Amino acid sequence: MSRLRIAEIFGPTIQGEGALIGQPTVFVRAGGCDYRCSWCDSMHAVDSAFRDTWAAMESGEVMDRVRALSGGRPLTVSISGGNPAIQDFGPLIKAGRAEGYAFALETQGSIARDWFEDLAMLVLSPKPPSSGEQPDWAAFEACIAAGAPWMALKIVIFNETDYAWAQEVAGRYPDLPLYLQPGNPQVDPAVPVAAQDVADRVLWLVEKVCADGWFAARVLPQLHVMLWGNKRGV
Amino acid sequence: MSRLRIAEIFGPTIQGEGALIGQPTVFVRAGGCDYRCSWCDSMHAVDSAFRDTWAAMESGEVMDRVRALSGGRPLTVSISGGNPAIQDFGPLIKAGRAEGYAFALETQGSIARDWFEDLAMLVLSPKPPSSGEQPDWAAFEACIAAGAPWMALKIVIFNETDYAWAQEVAGRYPDLPLYLQPGNPQVDPAVPVAAQDVADRVLWLVEKVCADGWFAARVLPQLHVMLWGNKRGV
Repeated sequence: MSRLRIAEIFGPTIQGEGALIGQPTVFVRAGGCDYRCSWCDSMHAVDSAFRDTWAAMESGEVMDRVRALSGGRPLTVSISGGNPAIQDFGPLIKAGRAEGYAFALETQGSIARDWFEDLAMLVLSPKPPSSGEQPDWAAFEACIAAGAPWMALKIVIFNETDYAWAQEVAGRYPDLPLYLQPGNPQVDPAVPVAAQDVADRVLWLVEKVCADGWFAARVLPQLHVMLWGNKRGV
Repeated sequence: MSRLRIAEIFGPTIQGEGALIGQPTVFVRAGGCDYRCSWCDSMHAVDSAFRDTWAAMESGEVMDRVRALSGGRPLTVSISGGNPAIQDFGPLIKAGRAEGYAFALETQGSIARDWFEDLAMLVLSPKPPSSGEQPDWAAFEACIAAGAPWMALKIVIFNETDYAWAQEVAGRYPDLPLYLQPGNPQVDPAVPVAAQDVADRVLWLVEKVCADGWFAARVLPQLHVMLWGNKRGV
């Protein structure tokens, strides 16, 4: 069996974003991505320049680490990246579920996997125009069709163009719970985050959504950035 | 029909707490409460000293105001207080539902109402020891039995005693989704909130929950306090 490329495993800490915000979680961050978003906040898990920092691990080794971090108590495991769907996380999810762990997976929706149906939650985060990437909607719809029992759309918004695009995308998938998240233009872990700047970007988006009567959209910050800045491993 | 005592109606803005965090919402804050929590952050809707500031409104007048604020577009209406369950919000909820509005109601769970079953969500927020109040668990369980289609527990935690109490209460109601929220000891709208103090209280609670392996508990801040401080009407 081929091994998984893992950029980092950390936690438990709370999920900072989206539908599971506040949920104690162990994070498994996969290395490697088919996208190169201009504003990526996890380039250490994307760019092959960081490849030497990724571990090659069997699913069982990943599960050993998750179990150690959680003290053996089942919890929610979030698989993120990079794009974790470029690798085969099916065996990890199957093994963890057998022990009572629940898995959420976050992906841009560019690659569908049949093991999505074993997730507790699939977060689909199509990338807006500011990313410089262009979603493949046929692939995206194959992800939706893969049968995850709970799904949500999470769209990052940096500017007016992204906002208009998000409205169009949300209109196409009205049955998916929708989370909007202001973009974070400052992702250098070495530079302290200005709390007021983070708050101001949330306020901008809250005001737009409320003024436009876009009441199906939930607006959430990256709570972890408000609490820890861009520090890694929390 | 007797009129409703209403302390304030405002929005739309995002829900700042609990299971619906981030959801665009119009807030209807009822005047009057059967509790006097030591740290109440809404005393203007509780203490009868503020009674002159409350409006006496028919359900239809409340609905007119909600409709005006939302531009006639259905959204989530959160009925809070005070304790809204001391008044009859059944007719308002029925009228609003007929127009497509969804209602959430927040109460300590001291008074059950048959119209809870017409809510989209019932948030039960039993008050911990630091409040100086003592829950009536028979009444609380009558609230659970009233048949709301979606319920959650939200427990405010100020200190270790509250935390231990929350563990016990949560253990009694394992089927209810659980949200923990650090208490806010500084509720004077005239005094600016120190963002770092708010963050520190969240971090304290996150660290405890994760260290104790209490993975069913979701930990969320009062996001509106992080964004707006103690300002009213947002």
